[in-house]
Amino acid sequence: MSGITLPVLIEVVRGTTVESRHRGAAVVMDRHGKVVWSLGDPELVMFPRSAIKPIQAALVMAESGAMAAFGVSRKELALACSSHNGQPMHVEPVLAWLDRLGLSPTDLECGRQDPGLASDMHALYRAGGEAGPEHNNCSGKHSGFLTICRHMGVDPKGYLDPEHPTQAAVCRTMAEMCGVDLARADLGTDGCGVPSIAMPLHALALGMARLADPAALADARAKAGRAIVEAMAAHPLMVAGTDRACSALLESGRGRYVVKGGAEGVYAGAWPEKGYGIALKIEDGAGRAAEIAMTHILRRIGALDDEAWSGLSEWATRPQRNWVGTRTGEIRATNALL
Amino acid sequence: MSGITLPVLIEVVRGTTVESRHRGAAVVMDRHGKVVWSLGDPELVMFPRSAIKPIQAALVMAESGAMAAFGVSRKELALACSSHNGQPMHVEPVLAWLDRLGLSPTDLECGRQDPGLASDMHALYRAGGEAGPEHNNCSGKHSGFLTICRHMGVDPKGYLDPEHPTQAAVCRTMAEMCGVDLARADLGTDGCGVPSIAMPLHALALGMARLADPAALADARAKAGRAIVEAMAAHPLMVAGTDRACSALLESGRGRYVVKGGAEGVYAGAWPEKGYGIALKIEDGAGRAAEIAMTHILRRIGALDDEAWSGLSEWATRPQRNWVGTRTGEIRATNALL
Repeated sequence: MSGITLPVLIEVVRGTTVESRHRGAAVVMDRHGKVVWSLGDPELVMFPRSAIKPIQAALVMAESGAMAAFGVSRKELALACSSHNGQPMHVEPVLAWLDRLGLSPTDLECGRQDPGLASDMHALYRAGGEAGPEHNNCSGKHSGFLTICRHMGVDPKGYLDPEHPTQAAVCRTMAEMCGVDLARADLGTDGCGVPSIAMPLHALALGMARLADPAALADARAKAGRAIVEAMAAHPLMVAGTDRACSALLESGRGRYVVKGGAEGVYAGAWPEKGYGIALKIEDGAGRAAEIAMTHILRRIGALDDEAWSGLSEWATRPQRNWVGTRTGEIRATNALL
Repeated sequence: MSGITLPVLIEVVRGTTVESRHRGAAVVMDRHGKVVWSLGDPELVMFPRSAIKPIQAALVMAESGAMAAFGVSRKELALACSSHNGQPMHVEPVLAWLDRLGLSPTDLECGRQDPGLASDMHALYRAGGEAGPEHNNCSGKHSGFLTICRHMGVDPKGYLDPEHPTQAAVCRTMAEMCGVDLARADLGTDGCGVPSIAMPLHALALGMARLADPAALADARAKAGRAIVEAMAAHPLMVAGTDRACSALLESGRGRYVVKGGAEGVYAGAWPEKGYGIALKIEDGAGRAAEIAMTHILRRIGALDDEAWSGLSEWATRPQRNWVGTRTGEIRATNALL
């Protein structure tokens, strides 16, 4: 733990009283590693979790030629970057993609997870169904891993293992993009079973800056990076889903920037116009704070124009309601973000 | 916000790296308001949320004679203090209690909520049912409010309103127990629709100390307080349910102390043997941190004997697993609590 006390970025208000507070750190960087803007401690060590998905399975799949070889669409590329709601709009294309690979949901090793929206979940069980790995929020990324396995001609079984050729290639790529020494980094296991690489917050920002401005990358990787940004921007709902900050932010960007959230209060972004990468971590891991903070950071650094900003008011200050729908308060940014 | 930076009490570990941190404040107090032990800032203003349930509907119901008049059992008194899982073991007695009052779930104004355990929720929808207000984690407390309404002979409709005779009596009682000036306090609306009174953390500890050592209270209230402690201790599973820290802590206490958690990282406890009240608030509102911190505070102040402590190992350090059951890390106390 660094000696720096992180500032309070987000506060939770009930009535007129602040009842909870979220601290965090954020850094905006260019591909040379120059810090453009920061809050708190950019050296904070964290796991990027799902915020790194754009430079995980998706990047290797696009760069290696696996994407072209298996006719992976732009929509499927966006799904490979997603932490989705498990809505029919996500599950159906995942099933079709697996089928095209000659595989099935039983080949996904991410585990079963209920759909994210209560209405979908109720409908699933009411119809006598049950959640499978295809509903898991990571099933798009795992379909990406399986596509790489097929392209490499390796047995997909055990593709989560850091030693498996697919996972080894993916870890190497993430480490290269973020400038992390894989031999010295702590490898944690993510919620969906794959390795997550511990790194300072600025390393995630650097990886995203290289996605935003891939000019210095090798041709195949640069091309892959551009395709990923385009795919996420073109299919906001594929990356998260209905009523999700990540999709709302992607939509509001109209292609100007992309963002991706992860568990434990992590958020990452890439702004190609400026060549900036963005990384954010809420100290306590709260996603409710990260999404509001990311909205304000985009505004603060100038990525959100007035039109985009006004369309995001419900994500800039989040009204809170109780079980019967009465407004009880709000979650809002502190002066540190304004 | 006070100027005191709260200490990190709990850390979330993945691999060998701390990925998230939770700060908090705690205070242990006797009924005279003497601070026995504290961490962080006892002046921190918070909403006690559901942690105050033992001195909310339950206390007024028992003190006013409503409990005796309507033959409310000790198990039902525990339910009136509960934030339950909406398991059949909770829902069935709530329905029977309402029926005895001549009322039905439509009289509960807490709103619908899915059962807390995935298995119950799946079974409910698979059977073609749907969640009602009786499944709401607060339905026991609301049955308590309705019992008070019946005893007062007032129309239950609108019983959530601070001006309703039932709610006014309950707010007055909570404020008296905690030494709060109701005329000056911020009244927030809780998740289940009733008022929650903003107060410093030490005020919640004082209220719980008066429950732990009711000697100076008026006879009827002292008797009611003792009945509540006995009921919670006798029915740990009624207060929360399967796989819940609150029930595990109550069971481990074997009647020596009682505890109750609330939303936004609040926990309260009463230890009659010493006459101590305990109040804890996690700065960011995380329940996962509050339950581990409470376990350690009980150990630290001597309320947990060796046998109880060894039975609570999974709540003292909480293993973390991913969707396929692989251990990914743990949530544990920092030195501040050891």
